[in-house]
Amino acid sequence: MRAVDIIHKKRNGGALSKDELSFLIKGYCQGDIPDYQLSAWAMAVFFRGMNAEETANLTMAMAESGDQVDLSPIHGIKVDKHSTGGVGDKTSLIIGPLVASCGVPVAKMSGRGLGHTGGTIDKMEAMAGFRTELTRDEFIAQVNDIGLAIVGQSGNMTPADKKLYALRDVTATVESIPLIASSVMSKKIAAGADAIVLDVKTGSGAFMKTLEDSEKLAKAMVEIGTEVGRQTAALISDMDQPLGYAIGNALEVQEAIDTLHGKGPEDLTTLCLALSSHMVVLGGRAGSLAEADAMLRDRLYSGAALEKFKVFVAAQGGNPAVADDPSLLPQAPLVLEVPSEADGYVAAIQAEELGLAAMLLGAGRATKESVIDYAVGVVLQRKVGDHVRKGETLALLHVREDNASVRDVIRRVQSAYTFSGEPVSPSPLLLSVVTEQGVQRF
Amino acid sequence: MRAVDIIHKKRNGGALSKDELSFLIKGYCQGDIPDYQLSAWAMAVFFRGMNAEETANLTMAMAESGDQVDLSPIHGIKVDKHSTGGVGDKTSLIIGPLVASCGVPVAKMSGRGLGHTGGTIDKMEAMAGFRTELTRDEFIAQVNDIGLAIVGQSGNMTPADKKLYALRDVTATVESIPLIASSVMSKKIAAGADAIVLDVKTGSGAFMKTLEDSEKLAKAMVEIGTEVGRQTAALISDMDQPLGYAIGNALEVQEAIDTLHGKGPEDLTTLCLALSSHMVVLGGRAGSLAEADAMLRDRLYSGAALEKFKVFVAAQGGNPAVADDPSLLPQAPLVLEVPSEADGYVAAIQAEELGLAAMLLGAGRATKESVIDYAVGVVLQRKVGDHVRKGETLALLHVREDNASVRDVIRRVQSAYTFSGEPVSPSPLLLSVVTEQGVQRF
Repeated sequence: MRAVDIIHKKRNGGALSKDELSFLIKGYCQGDIPDYQLSAWAMAVFFRGMNAEETANLTMAMAESGDQVDLSPIHGIKVDKHSTGGVGDKTSLIIGPLVASCGVPVAKMSGRGLGHTGGTIDKMEAMAGFRTELTRDEFIAQVNDIGLAIVGQSGNMTPADKKLYALRDVTATVESIPLIASSVMSKKIAAGADAIVLDVKTGSGAFMKTLEDSEKLAKAMVEIGTEVGRQTAALISDMDQPLGYAIGNALEVQEAIDTLHGKGPEDLTTLCLALSSHMVVLGGRAGSLAEADAMLRDRLYSGAALEKFKVFVAAQGGNPAVADDPSLLPQAPLVLEVPSEADGYVAAIQAEELGLAAMLLGAGRATKESVIDYAVGVVLQRKVGDHVRKGETLALLHVREDNASVRDVIRRVQSAYTFSGEPVSPSPLLLSVVTEQGVQRF
Repeated sequence: MRAVDIIHKKRNGGALSKDELSFLIKGYCQGDIPDYQLSAWAMAVFFRGMNAEETANLTMAMAESGDQVDLSPIHGIKVDKHSTGGVGDKTSLIIGPLVASCGVPVAKMSGRGLGHTGGTIDKMEAMAGFRTELTRDEFIAQVNDIGLAIVGQSGNMTPADKKLYALRDVTATVESIPLIASSVMSKKIAAGADAIVLDVKTGSGAFMKTLEDSEKLAKAMVEIGTEVGRQTAALISDMDQPLGYAIGNALEVQEAIDTLHGKGPEDLTTLCLALSSHMVVLGGRAGSLAEADAMLRDRLYSGAALEKFKVFVAAQGGNPAVADDPSLLPQAPLVLEVPSEADGYVAAIQAEELGLAAMLLGAGRATKESVIDYAVGVVLQRKVGDHVRKGETLALLHVREDNASVRDVIRRVQSAYTFSGEPVSPSPLLLSVVTEQGVQRF
């Protein structure tokens, strides 16, 4: 078998066999097949696509390229959740305890943030003492004991995906649905998921700009799940603005706690309940989404989910009192107002710009080596549809000191807002759901 | 400027600017832009193509990537000729003296053979004493003196093309018309041509299998010539069988000499006259193809072209007596018959297979390091349309000795022939001509 023949076959529109894809990915990982052949292949895939079977075989080849987590010692159906990336997305902190309080085991591996996106692991570490590194035995014992553990990725997981993604990034081959879908799914499968719920963002602030493209990506991922025996459901949600109000590690933990108190922002609460419903159904704890939703609302408004959060934080070394006393979280010494420069209705808020603003304040990493300041960040005061007058506050910046770079961040936040003279209705948050049964728009 | 943005632009169907193409090619040559970006770009070009301006700019960027030959000290319009590859193609040995005898200066750089294709330089070196390495001053003085010199490529010409071609070969990106066209034209332009005549092969034995594709390639090359101020004409000729009868270095020199005596194979003579007519017109020595053809036939049948050949051979150190006494050429000790295994009419002869057969006898190079045996080769006795009975001779092998590998070659030559029970008319040799004025089919 030769790599050039495999590239040629795909270039001419052929479907690659399992053996061919495995040869390509293994050879690439081992350094036998060079970058320049993989990049030519990726460009051919960009133009020719891949069918469901090919995409599934690529996914498995990447999942099997490194360490794979065996979650079989954990009782029950392990359902994982993945978001295609969002600014202010603290859903894992809420969904984890919420779903676990319904009896679905949550054994989650999360990542750190880079650039404009935050990471669940960083947010959890904003709680003093919280350990995101557990041994395998601790991890499994904790999930079997309290139903929930969240740790950082360790070991050598999906090295093929890491290597291929880095190559795609510099060869203009990122925007290929089968390549994106297999990248996401390979990581979830290597992390041991039995079933997967996906939060696919759409809109100007998302990777997929149109609902149609987002649904295509969701379909590709659901098809992979079907092919490889991991039931998968995907929700398409709007990303014309950040989720909730808070962007920044401790600020987002606080908003997650508020939500677990039943007092969270409406969009965040709605999305968490929707994603959790699918997880509870796939986890076999409810026969329908309606039943799951009722169960989840009960756990949320009865305080059961908050209680699970406290047990979880304590189990991983944090102080559970934080759930009732947000002042125990890191606090920035200074809060500055970002005044509006215009009158009108907020029409859109560029999420990526706000993510960058928070990063520039110190809440995120410009490079892998950057050190995070857990206390700083941005809290929106106006979201899409809200009216504002010139000089009124758009957002609050939690900062260490007022300096020139903070002034730049203020301008950046101001320019992330777009205004309209006419009243604006925010677009619906949940747009469609994609399952094995097909696409259903709300 | 970033390579990834250039790839992205082409991937999305954009036209690249001169600066972008120059940045890409220069950066690649200097090692600043890696193989994996060029291969992704080449695959994007495969799918998206390039317009005439882009192709011309790419051509010039490659032509300027290394040494460029300055032929301005040679008086007159220097017209070069290029063939897209053929087995048994000894046209340069005939056309050189033929065109020079009409007063068009021929200052030609040629290559060596590799694999199933022979090279003009190897063929000329079959004449004892013939020097294919001249200094620049010797080269120019000889063309000004006798109108003709043919030397091997020296120095560092079109390194970008060499590097890119090697990359395309292993990334399934060879078959792109703008990339093929710019590769050919960059070499001719770097070699100093004022005008270019192309022999584009078509058919089962050629790189371009259909007349339409061959015309597309010819058009792309003519367009480059127009864009960069080098008048270019292309003849499309059939390659359902080898050109002439002889394959092998000394054997081909002998056939070329026969042709210069006016006694060459009809297909070879016809093609040489047609290509030469275009060269004489582009070289400004005739006002029309008909006028050029008459002039060339005069030079051919009067012996003037043969005389020019003798002067040329003598000038480069060979023995001109070879032109009247072929026994002065290297002779193989043994001639073996290849018997037909079937009755019928010859329907086609796979040229590439015969090229490989000659290579296996020692006439060509399996690798760059192989040493050539000038005497050996294949001489066809039957061509398309000829009738043959089982046991009659298809071809003669000129060999050193009869051994197992020669027996393999006999079988290979036999299997290169296809037969028909019905009489077969050979397809016309010349199919169409492509100039700035467009495509004209014969």
